[in-house]
Amino acid sequence: MSRLAATIDRIGPLDAAASAAAAEHLDRLTKPPGSLGRLEQLAIQLAGITGEQAPTFDRRAIVVAAADHGVAAQGVSAYPSEVTAQMVANFVAGGAAINVLARMARADVLVIDVGVASAVSVEASSPPQAGGHLLRRRIRPGTADLSIGPAMTRQEAIDAIGIGIDVARQLAGEGVRLVGLGEMGIGNTTAASAIVAALTGRPPSEVTGRGTGVDDETWRHKVAVIERGLEVNRPDPGDAVGVLAAVGGLEIAMLTGLALGVAAERIPVIVDGFITGAAVLVAARLSPALPRRLIAAHRSVEPGHAVVLDELGLRPLLDLDLRLGEGTGAALAMTLVDAAVRIRDGMATFESAGVADGSS
Amino acid sequence: MSRLAATIDRIGPLDAAASAAAAEHLDRLTKPPGSLGRLEQLAIQLAGITGEQAPTFDRRAIVVAAADHGVAAQGVSAYPSEVTAQMVANFVAGGAAINVLARMARADVLVIDVGVASAVSVEASSPPQAGGHLLRRRIRPGTADLSIGPAMTRQEAIDAIGIGIDVARQLAGEGVRLVGLGEMGIGNTTAASAIVAALTGRPPSEVTGRGTGVDDETWRHKVAVIERGLEVNRPDPGDAVGVLAAVGGLEIAMLTGLALGVAAERIPVIVDGFITGAAVLVAARLSPALPRRLIAAHRSVEPGHAVVLDELGLRPLLDLDLRLGEGTGAALAMTLVDAAVRIRDGMATFESAGVADGSS
Repeated sequence: MSRLAATIDRIGPLDAAASAAAAEHLDRLTKPPGSLGRLEQLAIQLAGITGEQAPTFDRRAIVVAAADHGVAAQGVSAYPSEVTAQMVANFVAGGAAINVLARMARADVLVIDVGVASAVSVEASSPPQAGGHLLRRRIRPGTADLSIGPAMTRQEAIDAIGIGIDVARQLAGEGVRLVGLGEMGIGNTTAASAIVAALTGRPPSEVTGRGTGVDDETWRHKVAVIERGLEVNRPDPGDAVGVLAAVGGLEIAMLTGLALGVAAERIPVIVDGFITGAAVLVAARLSPALPRRLIAAHRSVEPGHAVVLDELGLRPLLDLDLRLGEGTGAALAMTLVDAAVRIRDGMATFESAGVADGSS
Repeated sequence: MSRLAATIDRIGPLDAAASAAAAEHLDRLTKPPGSLGRLEQLAIQLAGITGEQAPTFDRRAIVVAAADHGVAAQGVSAYPSEVTAQMVANFVAGGAAINVLARMARADVLVIDVGVASAVSVEASSPPQAGGHLLRRRIRPGTADLSIGPAMTRQEAIDAIGIGIDVARQLAGEGVRLVGLGEMGIGNTTAASAIVAALTGRPPSEVTGRGTGVDDETWRHKVAVIERGLEVNRPDPGDAVGVLAAVGGLEIAMLTGLALGVAAERIPVIVDGFITGAAVLVAARLSPALPRRLIAAHRSVEPGHAVVLDELGLRPLLDLDLRLGEGTGAALAMTLVDAAVRIRDGMATFESAGVADGSS
């Protein structure tokens, strides 16, 4: 059995007994049953994922997968490809939005260079813990242009997925108990839209947005580039790894593997926005048991994201019009995980507080 | 000029210069302009409210106004009135959901007994800072039954508003810089629905929900009770204080005054769910400048809440199916205020990080 198949094999159903025990506990607390809505559902889901009634998440990480995209040469982004490497340096130095929000969520930032095109020059952050840790796992310096041929070979896609599985195992071994997915790669909304169009059959115009902020004309061009990529590559929607190779990205493939690997460890996966959503959509095609182990952090303004959430049956926790990526929404959602855990562990019961529970 | 009129008089427009300075600063940070969506809008709004480009909110409070409702005798709630006093004791002891979430948000919990019907027996919490502080300002032991006559006299409504204005001044004097509204009162969704129906002209069936969890039959009865209350009292929608007196609640009136008083101090007001929403809807009828100084924490499952948000032109930050009240949503929203402030203050600029800003 391949490592990918072995990983998928380890992703089972949620632990119903743990979820039921968590639900029963929540109903003893001094509030009307279910009145904390999705916070309570989250506490119940976390029990089911981990198999523990009251899991804690002291160590958590945001994994920011970074890579470049050959399709950026088509002028589909408001930023040049060099920004990918510059932002990786910024993540390591601790100055990016994800660093700020990860510090707030008490999460480590782990940046994986899976295929950045230009040199990453990294200075140690000051203080060192304020920045991110960089793992250099470059498979190739960016993908090829998906609008004129496959973005990468099938083997490269499998290798990138394998890096994700490796990182998942490493994080689990280090005691990380909550993982947020993040990404950086100029041009990657184009790849994500192409993946979602290929897997769902939706026309590219319906699943393509403005990324970091392109104008109307560039948006039409971006749609045309994706249409061309699908025509040239003709990816088979029944072959999720083939779709990744044809029109995906190295960071997206790595995140596909990471989501599977983390889920196999019974660790909750917080999905950020559209790009990470495309990565887990691929993963869910490989493992139909995956989505129930996912927490959708937020609803991105990218139109393709709603399609992804719908396909996965996920409802996001936050609706803040975020469109940055990096894992910023995932980091924000970690504070809601904290809230769910604190409610579960910090409240009085009807009995201990001497409050009538309405059942008599 | 009355104290209420003087307070309303002090609520001016937002400080456009402070907002513009905040927006300009945000655009220098290493992210596409506006890509953090509503977090950025929040940072800009906070500047406009306070008149400072970069306000900080080290001291914050959740004010939980508590009172009983004569209408509870009609059997409109799943819980008996005694629970109001029991929950006040729970707030002081630190065992309620609001205590847990306020600790997470580093906010003090200030409980105001404006009109609880039964005796509140309070034990000191252990450790003392874990619980809430109780202020005894009981105007009367609960309102009269709004379905058979006015809930209170006009003077009592004005007195309750005055308590809110007093508390606002006290908090501002103590250095509190962010205030969340919370409430507790068995029967108060009935009063809130009656207020919203009276002020907006919507039929009670459209703005009445299940509160803490009544069944279909009790819901129909609750709607009929509100219809009767509106027929008996015939409140004038142009007289917001009169509406409060006729079909409101003591804690709701207190929160009306609190919102006005806090806004007058240029301190942001975080509105929780439906009950606090009804209170600020009354306040907004008294001061049309108020809504821009409000932050809507979450979208409650109560159907009347959407009507309130629409009337106020507010979009909530969270959509978590909460229906507990107490200020729980407001406490959760404080972490998003923290996120907005940290983004504003913690990120590198394009210049400092050596990242191309896409404008060249």
